[in-house]
Order: sequence, then structure tokens, then C-alpha cells
Amino acid sequence: MPRVHVCEVGPRDGLQNARHLMSTEAKKAWISALAAAGLREIEVGSFVPPKLIPAMADTAEVVRHSLQIQGLKVVALAPNLKGFQRALEAGAHKVTFPVSASRAHSESNVRMTPEQMVEEVRKCARLGGAQIEGAVSTAFGCTMQGVVPEDEVVRIAASLAEFCDAVALADTVGYANPAQVKRLFRLVRSQIGSKLEGAHFHNTRGLGLANALAAYEEGVRNFDSSMGGLGGCPFAPGASGNVITEDLVFMFESMGVSTGIDLEKLFQARKILTEAIPEEPVYGHTPLAGLPKGFRAAA
Amino acid sequence: MPRVHVCEVGPRDGLQNARHLMSTEAKKAWISALAAAGLREIEVGSFVPPKLIPAMADTAEVVRHSLQIQGLKVVALAPNLKGFQRALEAGAHKVTFPVSASRAHSESNVRMTPEQMVEEVRKCARLGGAQIEGAVSTAFGCTMQGVVPEDEVVRIAASLAEFCDAVALADTVGYANPAQVKRLFRLVRSQIGSKLEGAHFHNTRGLGLANALAAYEEGVRNFDSSMGGLGGCPFAPGASGNVITEDLVFMFESMGVSTGIDLEKLFQARKILTEAIPEEPVYGHTPLAGLPKGFRAAA
Repeated sequence: MPRVHVCEVGPRDGLQNARHLMSTEAKKAWISALAAAGLREIEVGSFVPPKLIPAMADTAEVVRHSLQIQGLKVVALAPNLKGFQRALEAGAHKVTFPVSASRAHSESNVRMTPEQMVEEVRKCARLGGAQIEGAVSTAFGCTMQGVVPEDEVVRIAASLAEFCDAVALADTVGYANPAQVKRLFRLVRSQIGSKLEGAHFHNTRGLGLANALAAYEEGVRNFDSSMGGLGGCPFAPGASGNVITEDLVFMFESMGVSTGIDLEKLFQARKILTEAIPEEPVYGHTPLAGLPKGFRAAA
Repeated sequence: MPRVHVCEVGPRDGLQNARHLMSTEAKKAWISALAAAGLREIEVGSFVPPKLIPAMADTAEVVRHSLQIQGLKVVALAPNLKGFQRALEAGAHKVTFPVSASRAHSESNVRMTPEQMVEEVRKCARLGGAQIEGAVSTAFGCTMQGVVPEDEVVRIAASLAEFCDAVALADTVGYANPAQVKRLFRLVRSQIGSKLEGAHFHNTRGLGLANALAAYEEGVRNFDSSMGGLGGCPFAPGASGNVITEDLVFMFESMGVSTGIDLEKLFQARKILTEAIPEEPVYGHTPLAGLPKGFRAAA
């Protein structure tokens, strides 16, 4: 039975860019429900300056809650050494660092060049204490500079592979297309092999699932997604909407690819989300249409 | 340069299932705008009993308008011989017949078994006077009977291929997944070869583009889609939403696959649609997000 591994990033990428704040208690309940549905890895928050992003101010508490859930890999995002230290103090199992392949985006987002950001992640890796993922963001294009040269993506991915446990490619602003996804994953894998793990897509132009399918066909087995399609990038206009967990899981399960996730329980977790921030727009077709008559999950 | 051919079915599959009626004048303006954007084939209406589906009562007039647009293949749907005769009188270039592979759906929809429906289409083909497409509907599953055996789909497709100019597979209720799409297109092609032409997907569970990608990879080059994702099947609950023309065209063009369609002009045609029936829900990410910075079409 083929399998994929889904990492839910809604509590981080989703809520970080939502218009409405979710209470800490609701975050905890939502994360618990996601884990109960079968998610084995959740990016629960980011250690960014609370003044800059108030929605993430409670990340340490959310991490501590999540650590109590058995079998769950607790992931946090950090943009720099300081954030990494806070993630270690809280006890995160894995820390994701976004490293933008777009110079314009990198300088606007973290006030560092991509090379400086790579060195920042290298310092964290030397410290150790958690798994480290280097996520090459804006890998498929950038709202500021447009085209991002594939050579730059390969170069950054190769630098990160020297010291990261895993490398991911992220379509931060929803520019990717399936042909590009296949080409770029193949190219990066030819340079760094199995260190290339994850795919992070946005649904900005509706291509999220098509890109996930293309990545799957190219051998990718680790996918980020966000319940209700929450999320985006606050520094990249028009980048709203991660690929939708509910539809992604339905796609794979219906293809006979096991996710280990129970769709009915996933819909229950969605209920917690929509009740906690009822005015926030959420997306996803499968929860509205329901499962097909006679549907059987892969597992 | 690889190419695909897109048939816009919004004026038929979309409006037939919309909650709001579009005036005949607006239909004409919309179809003209679609053609101006580069659509070379449009399913402009259906010859069904006007009492049953008032939205299609003006199809003959819409066909006559569309015939004046140079280079446009004018398609109409017909469910039976009577509808076919009306389509011929109006002058449609091509007539599509839906033949449901689901017995339950067929009997509910046209009060005929699939075999009786095949014979009805055969009668029309003998009359001649227009190109005939046999579309195997509910080919990927049915809201009434659930699973539709693939053998039934192959059998019906093979019968239709005896006398139709082209055969299509339609996911009428949005049950298809990419693995199934590849398997079923391959299977049917192995039986009827190049007579298998078109793919008609719905976006009911968000998989429309992923399924279109899968079909493309399996060699399909003819796709139905509906502007704004209008459409569904009134006799199959929960089947709302054809695959969205704007996002489909964006996907192919960004992959370097030419559609011959100008996206900016397509967005103008969308404006006519949304102004004509402003309260009707329309979908599509690309028109809202806009084209990526530095985007270049395939053509």
C-alpha cells in the first residue's frame, strides 16, 4: 500500500495569516482533534516576534500542550537563531526554517540575503537539540521579483542539505505549475538525493492539488497542507490559501494512497476550527460535498 | 508546442444548473466574449423539454447567434431523437449525447436503460447532419448507485464508438480521482483507440484540475470546462461545479501547453457572466489572484 505523510500547517501558516485571532484554548483543542484524526505531524506555531505577529504569541504554550499528545511530531517555525532558541526551550521536536530563494522576498521578509539566512540556519544546526528542516520558500516564483532562477533554488537547497535533516520546496505565493513542480523536484533531488523530502503548496490559483499530484508522481511523499485552506504569506500579496488538507487527504485516499488520516474525524476537527473563528473564510470542497457513496479509504 | 483543446460548457452545463436565469441577450454576449478570448468550441445549450428546464428554452436562438461567430464549433446537448432533430433544425455543428454508465442514474435522468440510450443515439447517428459525441456520464461513480463498474463504462464506450464521431468520459458527479482517471482512460482507449477524445470533470471535491492533469498525462487533449465553475447535474445531488475554465487554462498555459486562449480576454468574458447573473456563485482562483508576475502564456 503506497503511503504519504501529511504535515498539518494550519495552526502556523494558517493562523499566522488569518484575519481573526484564535484563542490559545481553541488552538489546543483544534490540534488535539487534528491528532485524533490521524495527523502525526503538526506545525503548531512560529517563534517570531510577538509584536510583529500577535497570532503566534502563544506558540510556546501551544508547543507544550502538543508535546503531551502521544505519537505527535511537534513542529515550529523559526526565522532566526533567537526563534530557534525559543523553540528549543519550548521543546519542539522539529524546527522549520524558511529560506527564500528570491532575494527580493528574503530581504523584505527577514532582512537577510538568502546566503545570510543559510548561515543563520547553519548556526542553529550546530547548536542542535531538534530536527531541522530547511524550506526553500518562493522556490517556484515570487510576487516581488517574478521568476526565481532554478539554479538559485538548487544552490540554496544544496547548501541547506549540508546540515539540515531534511529540505523542502515551498510554493509560498502560489505560482507553481505541475510541469515546473516535476522539473524542479527532479533537479533538486539529482543534487541532494533523499534529503529532499517535503512539498509545500498554496492554492492561490487553484493548482494546489494538481501540484501535489505532480510532486507525488515525482516521488515526493511528504506534504504540508492546511485545514480549510487557511494561510498564505503576509509579505507576499495575493498568496492566500495553503493547499487544503481535507481535499488533499481525500485525493490520496481515493487514489488508494494511505494517509493514515480518518476523513470523518478530520471533518470534526474542521468544526472546531470554524466554530473558533467563525468569520474566517475557509475553503475545501470535500467537507461540503461529503464523501462519495460507497467510498472506501485506502487504509 | 504541446496543445490542448478546451470546450466551454458553461452556457449549457453551467446555466442549466444555475439558480438564476440568464437572458438570451446576455448569453449571446457571453458566448461572443468567450469566442473572442479564443474558445473554438462552445456547448451553447441543450435541446431538452423547455418545461422541464426553462433555462434552456432559448437554445435554438442561441445556436443561431453562435453560428455567426467565425471559426466557432457550435455544440448542443440532446438527450434523445427529438432533441437531436431540434439541434439539426437550429444548425448545431456537433451534438453531444450523455449516456449514463450508471443504470440508476440513466433511468432516473432519461427514463431509459443505458442500452436503450445507446440505441437512441444510434438512430440519431443514422440520420446524420451533425457531428455526434457520445459522452459516457457517471463514468467514475454515481450518487445513486455508488460504484460504476469499469466494464460497464468500457462496454458503453465501445457501443458508442461504433457510430459516434467521438466518445468522452464524464465525471458527472465529481467522484473521480487521478489514479482512476488514468486507469479508465487507458482501459477505454485500449478498446476504442482514438475515438476516445474528451474528458469532462467536475470540481465537486476539489479534484477537477488534478483529474484534468491526470487525463492529460494519459494522452487526453480535449477538455470540457465551465467558466466560473458553473454547473452540475440536477439529477445527481451534490454534483455542482464543472472544472473551472479560468484555472484550467492557467494550468495548461503555465505548463507550456497552449490552449489558444487569451487569459486576460477570458477574465473579460467572466465579467459579462458575473454582471449578467450577479447573485450566482462563481468560482475560480486565477481571476481573483491575477496572473503571476512575469507570467508568459504558452502560445
